[in-house]
Amino acid sequence: MATDAKKIPYKIYLEENEIPTSWYNMRADMKNKPAPLIHPGTLQPLKFEDMQPIFCDELIKQELDDETAYIPIPEPIQEFYKMYRPSPLTHAVFLEEALGTPAHIYYKFEGNNTSGSHKLNSAIAQAYYAKEQGLKGVTTETGAGQWGTALSMACSFFDIDCKVYMVKVSYEQKPFRREVMRTYGASVTPSPSMETNIGRAINAEHPGTTGSLGCAISEAVEVATSNEGYRYVLGSVLNQVLLHQSVIGLETKAACDKYGIKPDIIIGCAGGGSNLGGLIAPFMGEKLRGEADYRIIAVEPASCPSFTRGKFVYDFADTGKVCPMAKMYTLGHDYIPSPNHAGGLRYHGMSSILSQLYHDGLMEARTVEQTKVFEAAEQFARVEGILPAPESSHAIRAAIDEALKCKETGEEKTIIFGLTGTGYFDMTAYEAYNDGKMNDYIPTDEELAESFAKIPDIGL
Amino acid sequence: MATDAKKIPYKIYLEENEIPTSWYNMRADMKNKPAPLIHPGTLQPLKFEDMQPIFCDELIKQELDDETAYIPIPEPIQEFYKMYRPSPLTHAVFLEEALGTPAHIYYKFEGNNTSGSHKLNSAIAQAYYAKEQGLKGVTTETGAGQWGTALSMACSFFDIDCKVYMVKVSYEQKPFRREVMRTYGASVTPSPSMETNIGRAINAEHPGTTGSLGCAISEAVEVATSNEGYRYVLGSVLNQVLLHQSVIGLETKAACDKYGIKPDIIIGCAGGGSNLGGLIAPFMGEKLRGEADYRIIAVEPASCPSFTRGKFVYDFADTGKVCPMAKMYTLGHDYIPSPNHAGGLRYHGMSSILSQLYHDGLMEARTVEQTKVFEAAEQFARVEGILPAPESSHAIRAAIDEALKCKETGEEKTIIFGLTGTGYFDMTAYEAYNDGKMNDYIPTDEELAESFAKIPDIGL
Repeated sequence: MATDAKKIPYKIYLEENEIPTSWYNMRADMKNKPAPLIHPGTLQPLKFEDMQPIFCDELIKQELDDETAYIPIPEPIQEFYKMYRPSPLTHAVFLEEALGTPAHIYYKFEGNNTSGSHKLNSAIAQAYYAKEQGLKGVTTETGAGQWGTALSMACSFFDIDCKVYMVKVSYEQKPFRREVMRTYGASVTPSPSMETNIGRAINAEHPGTTGSLGCAISEAVEVATSNEGYRYVLGSVLNQVLLHQSVIGLETKAACDKYGIKPDIIIGCAGGGSNLGGLIAPFMGEKLRGEADYRIIAVEPASCPSFTRGKFVYDFADTGKVCPMAKMYTLGHDYIPSPNHAGGLRYHGMSSILSQLYHDGLMEARTVEQTKVFEAAEQFARVEGILPAPESSHAIRAAIDEALKCKETGEEKTIIFGLTGTGYFDMTAYEAYNDGKMNDYIPTDEELAESFAKIPDIGL
Repeated sequence: MATDAKKIPYKIYLEENEIPTSWYNMRADMKNKPAPLIHPGTLQPLKFEDMQPIFCDELIKQELDDETAYIPIPEPIQEFYKMYRPSPLTHAVFLEEALGTPAHIYYKFEGNNTSGSHKLNSAIAQAYYAKEQGLKGVTTETGAGQWGTALSMACSFFDIDCKVYMVKVSYEQKPFRREVMRTYGASVTPSPSMETNIGRAINAEHPGTTGSLGCAISEAVEVATSNEGYRYVLGSVLNQVLLHQSVIGLETKAACDKYGIKPDIIIGCAGGGSNLGGLIAPFMGEKLRGEADYRIIAVEPASCPSFTRGKFVYDFADTGKVCPMAKMYTLGHDYIPSPNHAGGLRYHGMSSILSQLYHDGLMEARTVEQTKVFEAAEQFARVEGILPAPESSHAIRAAIDEALKCKETGEEKTIIFGLTGTGYFDMTAYEAYNDGKMNDYIPTDEELAESFAKIPDIGL
C-alpha cells in the first residue's frame, strides 16, 4: 500500500518541531476500559490516596485517567526528547533485498540513546514529575539494566537522587550496565541487600541467593515508602508508561503520513507491553474509532507466552506479592522462564490495556522460539548494520516471517516493526548463539498448570 | 560568530541527498605535501608495486594521490552511508547551560552505528575496494576493538571474509567486542596466535605474553601476504583513511553552511589522526586556500603526547617494524603508554598529513590528563545524555576548557568538536574513575629520550 507520493529516504527523520507535544491515551477511545488495579486485601479498586505513598501524584492521575485522549507533554520533557528524538523510521531496503520480498519493511528505531532502548521515553517523564513534586528522589528495580540506565540518565538530568536495586546476579554479571548507571550518579545496590527489612529477611532465609526481580521490586518499594521524599517508579506494564511511550507511535504515524506510507501490519515485541503499547497507540486509536484497520501483532517468547497461553484474570503484578493485583494475561506470578531463555521479555504478566485489547480481538499475538529469534537478529545485523537487542529481535523474526509470506503470495504489504533497542550489553546471549550453545525452551502444559494454580481465585 | 539566519535545531540532520558524494583530499591544497612512506631497507619512497602485495590497488592509488582534490564516492558506499549517515551535528545547549558560558558549542556525533565510532566510514570503503578487486577477504588487527567491529560490519555487508587479529589481552578482557565481530561473521584470533610464523616465534620467545598491537599488525600482514586473495587493511594513520573520514568534515561544513554557523575553533582528539583529519578536512582546505581562518586544536593524552613532545622524523609505523617508515610526529616506535592509561589514543606516531600541517603551523595541539578527561566525560554524559568514548572525551575536555575561557572573557565563540564514539565497551575505565582509582601518568623527559634513541637516524 506504500505510495510514491514523496521519495522515501532510507531513514526518515522528522523535524524537531514534529516531535509530538502531547501523549495519546488509548484508553480514551476504548469501549471496554482496562480493569483497574485492585488492593489484594480489600479487592477494591485502588484510589488516588491508596497509591500516594508509593507513586508520584501526577503519575497516579495519569494511571487512573481513562478519559483524556491527549495529555500535553510538559516543556522540559519536550526539551529532553530533543536530545535523542525524533527517532528514525528506517526503510529496511537491504533487508528487503536480502529476503527477496515484494513487501515494504520499515522499523522505528529507539536505540539511539545511551540507555540503548525506548525506556528513556518514560524515565524522563517519571523523573520530571518527581522533581516537580519536590521529591528528593526515586527508587526502582532493574534486571537486565535497560530501565535502570534510562532512569539514571533522567534523574541525572533533573538532578534528583536515583536508587536502583539490581538483581544480584545481573549486578555481578553485567558490571558494564552497573557502571553506566553509576556514571550518571545513581546508587546501584545488589538485591537482596542488607539495607532493607525484606532484603535481610530474604538473605536470612536463602543464604547466598542471587536475587530475583520480585525481590528487587520489594526492596525498592520498601525504600521508597520508608524514606521521606522518595517514591517508587516502574518502567513497563503500567498505564502511565504506555501513555509516555505513545511518543513512539505518534512519531511513526507522523512519518508515515508525511511520506504516504500506510502500514498493513504493525509488529512489536511484548514483555510488559510498554514498547508495543507505545508503537501501536495512534494506529489502535484509529482502529478503535473505526477510521482505519491494521493487523497488529504482539510477539512474545515461546518460553514466556503470556498472551498466547496465559489466563486473563486478576493476578499479582510481581512475584513478591507486594504490588497490587492487575487484570491481565498472566502465566501466574510465580512463573519464571527457564534460565536457558536469554532473550529478555521475561515478565509473567502483561499491560492491562494490551490485555483488554487482545481479549477484545483488536490485536493478534504469536510466540517465537529463541534460536529463531537470534537467527533473525544476526541476519538483520549483517544487512541493516544495527545489532539488535534480543527483545527487539522477536519483532524482527515476525517481520521477516511476514515478509517471506509476501514473497510466496506476491503481496506488496507494508510492514512496520518496533526496533526497541541495541544488543551491546547482551553479547553473552549472542556468544551462546555464535557457539551453537543456545537452546529453545517451551513450558509444558503441566508446568503452566502448576503456575496457574497459584493465582488466587478472587472471583473477579 | 553564529548567526540566527535560520533557527538552529538541537540536532541538525542533513537530508539524505546532502550526504557528500565525493571525499575531499586535503593534500591537493597543501603547499608542503606530506612526506611519502619509505622502505626501511632502501630508504626509497614506496611505489604502487611495492605496496601491491599488501594493500588493495585502488586504496594504494588513493594513498599516493597528492593532487586530486575531490575523489568520487562509489555508489555502493554512498548507499551504505545512508544506513547511518548523515550523522547529527548537535547544538550542546544543555552543556552550554551547565557551564554558564556565552560560547556556542556544537559536536559532530559519529557514534550512532553499531561499531560505535567513526571507523565505519573508512571500513566500508576499504571493504568495497577489496570486493571490487575480486579479493576473497581482508586481514587486520584490532586493540580495543572499534576498528575490528567496523571492518566486520563492512565485510559482512559486501560478503567478503574478514580475519581480525585481536591483541590477546583485549580478546580476553573484551569478550563483548569479540562477539559483536563474530556475529558479523568475522574470524577473531587472539594475537599472538600459533597460526603464523611470527605469532609462533613471539609465543616461543615470550611464553604467556598477552600481545601488543605491533604484534597483531605483524600477524595480520603475514596472513594477508601469504594467502591468495587477501590484503591487509588499516583503520587510521594512512592518507587513504583520512580521505574517507573527510565525510565527517564535509557533512559538518554542509550543516554549518545550511544554518549559518561559522566556527571559530574546531577540536578533535588525535590518536593516529583519522577522526581529526576527517573532521577538519574542508575547513583546513579553506585555510590552505586562504579563504577562511579557523583555530584547529588536536587533543592528545598527556601520557602519549606525539604532537606536543614528539619528534618530526621518519620512524617505523609499528612497534614490530614490519611496516614502512613514515615521516611524522613520533614518540618512537617502541613507546608504549603506561598501563594506567585507559583512555585510548595510544599510538606512538601520527598521520603524516596532520604532522605536516602541524609542522607548518596550521593547527595547534595540546595534551590533557586522564582524570580531567573522565571528569569532562561524566559532566557531558549527565547533561547531554550520550556516554562518550574515552577517546572522544579528550575533545570534550578541550571544548569545555575553551568554553570556560569564553565565560571569563565574555566572548561568544563558536566551538565545534568531534564526538567520535560511544563508551559502552569502555566501562572498565569508567569504573576505575567512578571508584576513584584512576591515575594520571606523564612520561618523564628521560623516558622519552630513551624511546627517541631507538628511532633509526636515516638522515631524512
